[in-house]
Formats: sequence, structure tokens, C-alpha cells
Amino acid sequence: MNALRIFVDFAMTPDVLEMLRAGIRGHQLVFPKTATASVLAQAEREPQFAAADVAFGQPDVQAITEAGQLKWIHISSSGIARYDNPEFRDLMARRKIPLSNSASVYHEACATHVLSFLLAQARNLPLALRTRTANGTDVWRALRGSCAPLRGKTVLILGYGAIGRRLVEMLRPFDMNIIAYRRNARGDEGVPVVTEDRLAHTLAHEADHIVNILPDNSESRHFFNDARFSALKPGAVFYNIGRGSTVDQDALLVALRSGRIGAAWLDVTEPEPLPDNHPLWAEPNCFITPHVAGGHFEETKTLVCHFLQNFERFVEGNPLLDRVM
Amino acid sequence: MNALRIFVDFAMTPDVLEMLRAGIRGHQLVFPKTATASVLAQAEREPQFAAADVAFGQPDVQAITEAGQLKWIHISSSGIARYDNPEFRDLMARRKIPLSNSASVYHEACATHVLSFLLAQARNLPLALRTRTANGTDVWRALRGSCAPLRGKTVLILGYGAIGRRLVEMLRPFDMNIIAYRRNARGDEGVPVVTEDRLAHTLAHEADHIVNILPDNSESRHFFNDARFSALKPGAVFYNIGRGSTVDQDALLVALRSGRIGAAWLDVTEPEPLPDNHPLWAEPNCFITPHVAGGHFEETKTLVCHFLQNFERFVEGNPLLDRVM
Repeated sequence: MNALRIFVDFAMTPDVLEMLRAGIRGHQLVFPKTATASVLAQAEREPQFAAADVAFGQPDVQAITEAGQLKWIHISSSGIARYDNPEFRDLMARRKIPLSNSASVYHEACATHVLSFLLAQARNLPLALRTRTANGTDVWRALRGSCAPLRGKTVLILGYGAIGRRLVEMLRPFDMNIIAYRRNARGDEGVPVVTEDRLAHTLAHEADHIVNILPDNSESRHFFNDARFSALKPGAVFYNIGRGSTVDQDALLVALRSGRIGAAWLDVTEPEPLPDNHPLWAEPNCFITPHVAGGHFEETKTLVCHFLQNFERFVEGNPLLDRVM
Repeated sequence: MNALRIFVDFAMTPDVLEMLRAGIRGHQLVFPKTATASVLAQAEREPQFAAADVAFGQPDVQAITEAGQLKWIHISSSGIARYDNPEFRDLMARRKIPLSNSASVYHEACATHVLSFLLAQARNLPLALRTRTANGTDVWRALRGSCAPLRGKTVLILGYGAIGRRLVEMLRPFDMNIIAYRRNARGDEGVPVVTEDRLAHTLAHEADHIVNILPDNSESRHFFNDARFSALKPGAVFYNIGRGSTVDQDALLVALRSGRIGAAWLDVTEPEPLPDNHPLWAEPNCFITPHVAGGHFEETKTLVCHFLQNFERFVEGNPLLDRVM
């Protein structure tokens, strides 16, 4: 095989870059004029890209259509919103370009993050960490009594990919009822699955904890709207570690203020960050982290390791990890 | 069997009291002049106690020695510090009075609480919840990078009773190395056990997360002292949901300030609460909840249900749950 030109568009520390160079052996790295790191930023058009064989990062959609040599795209995030539409899928299928993502890089951290939300909620940690009181006071008794056991409660996971599956493993010891929502059940989920026809019933009568991991696409925009929020089981707790666009934040605010939902834990919002005067900041039961659920120590190292595993598979013609198109 | 007189010394809501009354059927409840609820408070001497057959709560040790009819003591907490000494054990053995505690009532909540600490630490939740930043900033990258995966890390659990065992179940999905410390290994722990001779090595070279659930007794006072803290693996994280008396807080403060330990998560302190001017409040990596780890919704109901299960066993001569003497 001739030396492949691998276009990489995100920033790395020198040691990680060295690891990448060593891992691709005789092949060649090419870089954009300015590296972009964010999943959400739009990459500029890059002349180097036109002759690339492999793209690793967040390549520009228009540039992809113009890159005649392209043989494989590996996305450096879990989310693939900008590529997730019928036209693009069609283009990839026609040109026989496989597209893989970095789901395996982030699912452990994301599942841990959402479980940390669930347990912080169950133990009322935000309040407990700022309460100073003696044993036996009314405040103390109320705080203890506000901690709601998870056992026997129902958690609904919307969007059932790598993160959802890992979360289910982490939730197993808690003896909760776990339900997954998918557009199409495949039968291999290992937990009961509801599809569209049954979702309203599950939200209204079963789900105590709602974990939203829906990806951003044309069908998911404002999936959680006023109708869905106002039909929830009273006191249900809402978690979002998917994409901010899947939630109508005005409707969420109403649901919080009315007490319809007990709390919201959000790692993603729209926009990010929310402006300082956004009313969700002031809601006492709304807890927001700044899109860090997938983050972890030496993240780009994990990202590059995962790419290199896949690169070896690509070169040897073996099935790719985390292939999504 | 004649009607038994059951002395109960803690406060209940009317519905829980009604449940207790219904559950003991023909037997008789007797109450102190003033109910005491705290584990740590000293009950006053109560004339009713002298003729009691069963004590449910936190009975006074001196009163126990004087209560000639006493046939069974059921403690309303997990901790049994005031009874946990050779003289008292000897007295119970001589008079053939079994003593059970309420460990099963609290272990689920306690294990969940300490896991919520572990995950909040792993995901840097206290900082993440107060950080507002855009994707891609240095602050954002640093926050993401500060999240330390649990996989492959070592957690040492000191004091391996009902809470420790439940915690091990909850930790299983995280692929951590789990080690228990006990005075005497029994061989049925299901995890590797270190005893005194090996503890220093484990603390210095292995433990990344140290979960202290040691009970309060003459051997455990200031178990975590300056020598132990200053020998820890640098950056180790310390959790205490046992008793505040097992930690030398001055030594803890030094360990935090020097950076020897990465953080401390405490549900118990000495005294409780710490005075407002106590320096641990001001330590940025010290997180304190006010002795609520065992607390949960309708806690006294769980407590009374557990007692009633045990009462039936007692009446029928079957082995007691959570018998500790």
C-alpha cells in the first residue's frame, strides 16, 4: 500500500503527536493551517484536505465532497451531528467511504458523569455540601429524609448507544427498573425497549429518572418540548448529556418552576455556555456542568490510541471499531 | 409467651408508631419521658426501662445493667460505639442478652452516599457545577482533563461490614482494584483483604481512594493520624463515612494543605458540625456533608420494619438479623 495522507485537524501536545507519528509508521500526517479542537466549531476549508486519504477529526462536509482521494473518515467525537443526514449518508455509501466515530473514547466518562448526577441527586449532595447542622435538628432530619433511594425506581434512557449500554452496566447493582427508548428495537439491548408508540405512556407513568442521550439530528430537535415535559410523572428528574438542541429550554424552565419535574442536571445546553442572565442559572434545582461529560485525564491520548487501533484495522482491511456509516 | 414490654426511645410520626403497634400485636410499648433521636446523645435514665423485656433504640448502658428483665436489645443505628467494649460484651454474654443493630437499614444509603462522593470526585463535580465556560477554552480543557478515570485505580475499604460489602457490589462495574482492610480476614470477603501487617504498604503504594468506614472504638481513635496521612500515595483521595473520632483532623488538614492527599470527602467529623471557624471548612478540596450518609426517605419506617422483622424472629426463637453480640 502506498503511503496514506492522514489529515488531522485537532490540537495535540507534543508527546501525543509523537505517539501518533510512531503509530502510523510510514504513512504521512498532514495538518490544517489552524487546528480546531471543538466538536461544535466549523472547520475552515483546508487546501491540504483535497488530497487526503484519511480524515481524523471534524472534517468540513463541503471539503469532504471535494476530496477525491478520501477512503476513510474517523470523527474525533461521539456526536456526528453535522454528518448525520440522508444526503451525507448517501454520499458516503455511493463513494464507499466508511465513517467511524470516537464513541469508545468517551462512553466510560459520559456514563460515569451521568451516574455521578444520578447519585448526587439521590443523596441531595448540592444541598448536603452546603448544610451545617447538628445531628437531630429539623434541618438535619429533613435533609436525611430528602434522600430518595434508587432501588425500585425506574430510569428511562433515551438514545441507546455505547453510553447507554455502559450506563446500564453501572446501574445494575442498584436494582432499578431500566428502560431504553430507541426508534427501532433490535432485540439485543438487554433491557426492555420502548419505541415511539409507547413512549408517552412510559414518560407519564413509569420514568422517575430520565436520561437524555439523544443525538442532535433533524428528528431530535426540541424532542423534550412543553408537551413532553408537562406530561412527566410529577417529581421526575431530568438529565441531559446528549445535545442541548434536543431540549426546549423554555419548556424545561416551566417544568422546573411548576415543580412538575424535581430537578434537571444538564451537561449540555443551547447555547454553551448559557448567557449569564439565563434564568436556568437561577433555578435552585437546575444543575449545569459545561459540556465536560466525556472529558477525562489525557483525553487526546485516548483519542489517538483509539484512532491508531482503527488505523491498523483500516490498513489491514478489517472491520472498523465504532463504524457508524 | 407473656406480653413483652418493649422500651422504645426515639421519635416517630403517628403513622410509623401505628405500624409499630400493629406489628407487635399483643405486646406492649413503653416510652421514655422524653424521646431522644440522636445516635450520639446520651439517653436519660428512665424508670420504665427497669422492667423492660426488649429495648429498641439507644438504651443507656448503666440502665441496661440494672434492667433485670431484659432479654434482647435492638440498637437503632449501625454504629454501636457506646456498647462496643469488652466489659459490655462480657455482660451481654453472661446474661445471654443478644444485641442486634440496624445495619441493614442504613447500608444501602451509606454505600450510595460514599459512591456519590467517589463519582463526584472522579468527575470533579463541585468545580464543574460552578464553572461557566465555552467549549474549547483553556479552562474547559483543564476541567475535562481533571476528571480521573476510576478504571484500574485501587480503592481500599477500611472496616468491612454491611456497608463495605454493598459498596463492593456497586463498584464492580468500574473495574477498579478493590481491597478491604480488616483486623482479621475470614476468607469470605470476596475481595483481597489486608490486615495490620500489610496495611502500611497498601496505603503507601496502592490505594488511590481510601474509604474509611471504621467504627468508633478504643482501637480506632485517630486511626488516621499524621503518620498514616503523610505516608499515603501522593494525590490519594480520602473518604470518611464511619465516625469522626477515627481521624486526627489536624493531620488531615496538614495532608490537604501539603497536597499529600488530593481531596477529602467527609460525612462525619469531630465535633458535628465543625465550628464555623474550623479550617477544614475553608479547604478547597475538603467536602463535608452533615452526617447524613445513612439518611433516606421514610427512614424511621425502614427502621421500624427492620425491628418488626427481627421481633418476629425473636418471638419465634429464630436467629436475629444483624446480631452483633
